Amino acid sequence: MKCVSCKEDYSSRDAGTCRECYEEASETEEELKREIEDLKAKVNFLRFWAPSDPLHHLHQQQRTAPFFSDVVLVASHDESGNSTPHPVPVPANRAVLASRSPVFRAMLENEMEESLSGTIKISDVSYDALRAFVTYLYTADACLDELMACDLLVLAEKYQVKHLKTYCEKFLISKLNWENSLPNYAFAHQHNAKKLIDAALSLIMENMDKLSKREEYKELVDKDPRLVVEIYEAYLSRQVNTAVHKDSVAKA
Amino acid sequence: MKCVSCKEDYSSRDAGTCRECYEEASETEEELKREIEDLKAKVNFLRFWAPSDPLHHLHQQQRTAPFFSDVVLVASHDESGNSTPHPVPVPANRAVLASRSPVFRAMLENEMEESLSGTIKISDVSYDALRAFVTYLYTADACLDELMACDLLVLAEKYQVKHLKTYCEKFLISKLNWENSLPNYAFAHQHNAKKLIDAALSLIMENMDKLSKREEYKELVDKDPRLVVEIYEAYLSRQVNTAVHKDSVAKA
Repeated sequence: MKCVSCKEDYSSRDAGTCRECYEEASETEEELKREIEDLKAKVNFLRFWAPSDPLHHLHQQQRTAPFFSDVVLVASHDESGNSTPHPVPVPANRAVLASRSPVFRAMLENEMEESLSGTIKISDVSYDALRAFVTYLYTADACLDELMACDLLVLAEKYQVKHLKTYCEKFLISKLNWENSLPNYAFAHQHNAKKLIDAALSLIMENMDKLSKREEYKELVDKDPRLVVEIYEAYLSRQVNTAVHKDSVAKA
Repeated sequence: MKCVSCKEDYSSRDAGTCRECYEEASETEEELKREIEDLKAKVNFLRFWAPSDPLHHLHQQQRTAPFFSDVVLVASHDESGNSTPHPVPVPANRAVLASRSPVFRAMLENEMEESLSGTIKISDVSYDALRAFVTYLYTADACLDELMACDLLVLAEKYQVKHLKTYCEKFLISKLNWENSLPNYAFAHQHNAKKLIDAALSLIMENMDKLSKREEYKELVDKDPRLVVEIYEAYLSRQVNTAVHKDSVAKA
């Protein structure tokens, strides 16, 4: 028999679908692809040009950004904890900030200092991370590396921008390996990133024999021993579950 | 043989794919579905709450709308062409309007009357259509019937909101039938809606024998005979193409 899809011959032992189901599946795929095109067009329509986007200078729209900005964000400290003497403000629009973050909304809709002065100070963040944060609020896009994903996750947690937090978590999970699993586990705990906690934890549990030899392990025992306890508890609980499962399979 | 998908028996004559291709196709479908979920989440993130949305009153965010509105749109005439003595203003935000429409952008970034006064007059539109228009600019969503789709298509053309124009065209094409094909054809021509022109034209050409008996046909001949000429030209050109095609098939 010949496969309708790959055109190769196959024996009836390796048969997949009947022709009717193949045709239905092809139609479904076409429909899904059309839906994706529609959604992409919607995303492009809803996306704002970002006033702080470096690419933005290439755009004709660039000239309009200062006009519609009615608030600036300022990185009030650099990452080393020192005050930046003349921080570069990142221009933004109140309506955009308020629509993306309930924290900004509360800040801007009440007559708080930030609302009256038109300046929002963001502490413990680099200028680059702040600019990337504002760009994400405008466009739902960010150019991530691991450091930037961590910085943005912290901001997303602080300003309750769930979509960005999920985006950073997914990126960090995709970059997980045995080397970085322990720092990621600690970081995720600190910022309440549950999916990253689970992914890092499961990687750590696969390498329990090597765990206690790691430098980061010793540091974590000193700094936050409860997190280490959680690793052992999770490991034990998995062992018990596996034993119970094996037992019930053996009995069945 | 048994189909992996529908579990029904089938003969080798009705074979579709081999098992490998079936599995690949299933994976592709899963991937496409995940992409759709991601895009939907992105759309929801980028969507603004709409200050003029009636549902909006149910939202907690409703209270913030007047705060972040810095411009109002006013339907300066109702549809019957009479001046409305006290039109209800639709509040909006300059940055949103400017990001969605190059016409609003030009209006608001220069010191034009609308920008200085903070009031944009929109002529020949009902309050309901204006409200739906602004809601669309915020959310990329509209609740359409045929009348609303026409009203919004006119606004989309006037303010160069391509995404909305495509949306309305698709809706009107989905509602096309022999009864409304001629008025839609004329309307589409008036507002430069090419896809709607093509769809209406192809429906009209399928019913050429009945065309000249229609009341709308006689009206169109009086009002804009060039559009009627275009119908006949398209019909003739199709007939010639069909004849050439038949000829080449017969020779082959």
